[in-house]
Amino acid sequence: MTKWALKLEYNGTAFVGWQRQDSGLSIQEVLEQAATNLNKGAPVSSIVAGRTDSGVHAEAQVAMIQLPEGYRPKQIRDALNYHMKPHLLVVREAAVAPDGWNPRFSAIHRAYRYRILNRRARPALLEGQVWHVAAPLDTVKMHAAAQLLVGTHDFTSFRAAACQAKSPIRTLERLDVAQDGALITFAVEARSFLHHQVRNFVGTLRLVGDGSWPIERVLQALAARDRAAAGPTAPAEGLSLVAVTYKDDPFKFET
Amino acid sequence: MTKWALKLEYNGTAFVGWQRQDSGLSIQEVLEQAATNLNKGAPVSSIVAGRTDSGVHAEAQVAMIQLPEGYRPKQIRDALNYHMKPHLLVVREAAVAPDGWNPRFSAIHRAYRYRILNRRARPALLEGQVWHVAAPLDTVKMHAAAQLLVGTHDFTSFRAAACQAKSPIRTLERLDVAQDGALITFAVEARSFLHHQVRNFVGTLRLVGDGSWPIERVLQALAARDRAAAGPTAPAEGLSLVAVTYKDDPFKFET
Repeated sequence: MTKWALKLEYNGTAFVGWQRQDSGLSIQEVLEQAATNLNKGAPVSSIVAGRTDSGVHAEAQVAMIQLPEGYRPKQIRDALNYHMKPHLLVVREAAVAPDGWNPRFSAIHRAYRYRILNRRARPALLEGQVWHVAAPLDTVKMHAAAQLLVGTHDFTSFRAAACQAKSPIRTLERLDVAQDGALITFAVEARSFLHHQVRNFVGTLRLVGDGSWPIERVLQALAARDRAAAGPTAPAEGLSLVAVTYKDDPFKFET
Repeated sequence: MTKWALKLEYNGTAFVGWQRQDSGLSIQEVLEQAATNLNKGAPVSSIVAGRTDSGVHAEAQVAMIQLPEGYRPKQIRDALNYHMKPHLLVVREAAVAPDGWNPRFSAIHRAYRYRILNRRARPALLEGQVWHVAAPLDTVKMHAAAQLLVGTHDFTSFRAAACQAKSPIRTLERLDVAQDGALITFAVEARSFLHHQVRNFVGTLRLVGDGSWPIERVLQALAARDRAAAGPTAPAEGLSLVAVTYKDDPFKFET
């Protein structure tokens, strides 16, 4: 058997999220069903770098599956893409996984992007891929407040009740807020994240942006170690997993 | 009555194009129906800067409608957007049209963007908004060939048979081809364009990019003044109207 590392792109809108659910179609189910087709009908299971919620997108999610030997990387990519039609889920690259490599535990860095469309008119071209906020937001204040969250902290206030991580302590490496016309983009990077952490950051920073909160209240929310002290969870549709980094990168030789 | 200039954004995928057709829903029909709702049910007609084909998108199309006096610009924008739900068509801005202004004949400059997704995997996040070309394209050669088309020329070779323009002569001000990862973007600017001109440029330059044509054959195609001498028409889905410029810009005071 060969272990394959897969770099995946998907539009999360029509999926119930990464993980299999009785309530609808998951990314995991579509991928594993396609892999099963390459495995003469025998079930194939997958491991993923980060389970994304319903509606969350990915430019570069990373997963691992195991298949019988004999395929070349391009065959794996093209055959899985063929079987995953017409779902908005594709394998961008496939590569043989290094010995001992695990898409989740070997990851040393994750990057997410969150986008707000900040204008009166709802989105037409970016429908389903941005959070539409009609009230004017002050991006400069949001960016300043975001810097108070960067570093190693107990992020209990920004962690979903359902979060299964053992520790609420994380090191936030980057949280930049930038504006280009009506589009506000959050670039968020860390080794790993708590459940809903990025969406809770954005929902909180929005309160700074619309003037409901002074900048320093973000520090108080962080110090409170209480989910109720921070802002609401921003909608899933604005979020995309854009990069997962490995020390021993399986994709380094693929293009 | 007040004449209103409207800046429109739309995803062309679900429309038969700008113009009313018996075959399905047009952008014109959805806009005029929404305006009719603001006009106590009396029909409203529109004039547009450039009629886009089925599947072609717009970030900033410009149209004009006439409605009874008494509305403010924000009311026009918000009320039209309310009535156009849930179609992927919105008014970004509304402004009172200057005297004698016409969205089509007053335009002094138009900018289009065409995007190719150049990789094996079909698009997931940009589905419907890019042309998927799996064969590797040489963007440097495409850009070099594109420069041979810039300037004032008889563009008969790049003009649709159905084109109604009196003259095939146009001045192409810009045709830049740039690559960012798998995404190839064409930035195309002129005072005005012939029917299918941008898509015919892209379909021809693709032949240079994949090595089917040497660069200089683009010059021969231009000189032939024969549609059959140039390449095929690229698909509509990669094309978007991104800007229309006016000397007397109705939107200059709106934000």
